[in-house]
Amino acid sequence: MTSNTMSDQTDARIVTLSIDAMGGDQGPAAVIGGLALSAEKNPDIRYIVNGPQDELERLIAKHKVLRGICEIRDAGGVVSMEDKPSQVMRHGKGTSMFSAIDAVRAGDASVCVSCGNTGALMALSMVRLRKLPGINRPAIAVLWPSRNPGGFNVMLDVGADVRADEQDLLQYAMMGASYARNGMGLERPRIGLLNVGTEEHKGRAELKAAHDLISLAAEDANYEFVGFVEGGDIPSDRVDVIVTDGFTGNIALKTGEGTASLISSLLREAFEYSPLSRLAALLALTSLKRLKKRIDPRRVNGGVFLGLNGTVVKSHGAADAMGFSAAVKLAFQLAQSGFSDKLAARVASAATLQQDAATTSDNKSG
Amino acid sequence: MTSNTMSDQTDARIVTLSIDAMGGDQGPAAVIGGLALSAEKNPDIRYIVNGPQDELERLIAKHKVLRGICEIRDAGGVVSMEDKPSQVMRHGKGTSMFSAIDAVRAGDASVCVSCGNTGALMALSMVRLRKLPGINRPAIAVLWPSRNPGGFNVMLDVGADVRADEQDLLQYAMMGASYARNGMGLERPRIGLLNVGTEEHKGRAELKAAHDLISLAAEDANYEFVGFVEGGDIPSDRVDVIVTDGFTGNIALKTGEGTASLISSLLREAFEYSPLSRLAALLALTSLKRLKKRIDPRRVNGGVFLGLNGTVVKSHGAADAMGFSAAVKLAFQLAQSGFSDKLAARVASAATLQQDAATTSDNKSG
Repeated sequence: MTSNTMSDQTDARIVTLSIDAMGGDQGPAAVIGGLALSAEKNPDIRYIVNGPQDELERLIAKHKVLRGICEIRDAGGVVSMEDKPSQVMRHGKGTSMFSAIDAVRAGDASVCVSCGNTGALMALSMVRLRKLPGINRPAIAVLWPSRNPGGFNVMLDVGADVRADEQDLLQYAMMGASYARNGMGLERPRIGLLNVGTEEHKGRAELKAAHDLISLAAEDANYEFVGFVEGGDIPSDRVDVIVTDGFTGNIALKTGEGTASLISSLLREAFEYSPLSRLAALLALTSLKRLKKRIDPRRVNGGVFLGLNGTVVKSHGAADAMGFSAAVKLAFQLAQSGFSDKLAARVASAATLQQDAATTSDNKSG
Repeated sequence: MTSNTMSDQTDARIVTLSIDAMGGDQGPAAVIGGLALSAEKNPDIRYIVNGPQDELERLIAKHKVLRGICEIRDAGGVVSMEDKPSQVMRHGKGTSMFSAIDAVRAGDASVCVSCGNTGALMALSMVRLRKLPGINRPAIAVLWPSRNPGGFNVMLDVGADVRADEQDLLQYAMMGASYARNGMGLERPRIGLLNVGTEEHKGRAELKAAHDLISLAAEDANYEFVGFVEGGDIPSDRVDVIVTDGFTGNIALKTGEGTASLISSLLREAFEYSPLSRLAALLALTSLKRLKKRIDPRRVNGGVFLGLNGTVVKSHGAADAMGFSAAVKLAFQLAQSGFSDKLAARVASAATLQQDAATTSDNKSG
């Protein structure tokens, strides 16, 4: 980091985030706009911005608030939405995404934010940051609008991996609890395991096994296990963290988004139906805005990659400046709480506990 | 059937449905109320009503429109929501559910309607009606509000079985196409296979295999295969029938319902926020009712069990008279179109085709 572009490095409250400026549907202007929005609200934030130097300098210069808090790291290559993860893994060096992740790897930033290609971002993150010791499959966690006081629940995995066995699901429970504690301030989060019924005899074999493992670990990992939950419980206040495999989680996430989007457009149609309904809509505008704010996907923008040496926040590919700013805010919160280190410690202690348990039961059976 | 209670038996338009009057959350009065609502709109409908004779006689007598079009079959036992399917399978004889299914088995009615325990209804239907030759796993299909002109898409399986291999998924595609043709009047339905991405290399192994099978069968079975679809496509106009396994389908269905219910209550809260917003709600009432009508689950009430010798329509357990009437309407449409026979013929011809294909490839390899 060069001292003439970054200041206040020694202040403990200061948090530096690494930003992939390229690869989003709306281009780097939306990303830089989002950085400016966050900086206006938050004097403790600093950025390492990765992408083509000239273009970024020009965009950053447009926002006074970004003066002196950005370090640009030049990277000319861009990962597109169409690029295959396997190719990016092999030939991704020199891209803004690679550079953004490497700033976390080098310890210059604790969290990386990107709105690029999800598969490529996960693949590069796995290769460059490596999995935490004891983690088999990393997961992507998202926030989901809910009836809980905080307004959101956490669900994971929503698509890092289409498979998950009972050990993976246990690790998701651990990581989800740690995320809810550090990202949402919940002291003792309630964990639910997604299934097709709440009775213990229902569902697939690996879910029954995971039910037992997650239940056993609850005390040590300081979460409450509420057992099986159903799709209808995802937005409920019965639970804070919903654990599932990446296939099911991805389908649920997109089904929820699709349903919300259908209702929004039907609501719009209903209010455009006649002159009277258009008048009603005008009067209802404040109320409708209040609703929209509550479920606006831009406000909950940011999937978090868990289980790596470092945290990566994936912003929606179509995010505008406001959406990207929400992802930056989430990244800041996680960085400031020391989430990456706490998660690593939690996973390490869980692995030790499991080894101890295995040793004990070996001794017993021996 | 006794001639003094039922009339017009010889008219070809007349359709007789078998009704399980018991086991719903709202009791038999809601069921009988639903029968009356349907009879008011439809002079061609007749009912075999299964349940406790005295209670049913009293309830039916309250509705003039039901006079002379109901035959009561006395059955004192009731399957409750808490009963385990395995127990009902062994000891279900004498219940209204058993009696309702047996009227289809005997050929006295072509479709059965029940709002009782889903698991028990499927178990009893499997035992009494038996699977169609060539069907490995029956499926439950539901209608889903969508952007299509008809207002709905079909999704199956939503929970008959938590597993499905590629052959099962192919059969779901066949059955779903037949349902869309006969229940929704779509000549050449578009079929999509639910996955976590639309690229052909994505997802689980059995999905790639199913992709090939469903694609190969499209021409003969007279449907269009649009390939993989995602959760967000379930309410879209890209597709008419969404094929998936019962675990994923059940999670998607309940997630969609949960999301819609959350948005409805947030919308209500938004309009109750202040005196001005309450006034706006008053003016917007017609528009909001228009929206509600479009996504009201009572209007799309009815999961259909496919793949048995006879059709069973499962109404929602909490259905009121209007909801039950929607299930009755769906059952009537399917019965009148001769759906059960057409589906059986379709499955039989598919099985023959597959055998032919297998024989041909055997010959080739031999």
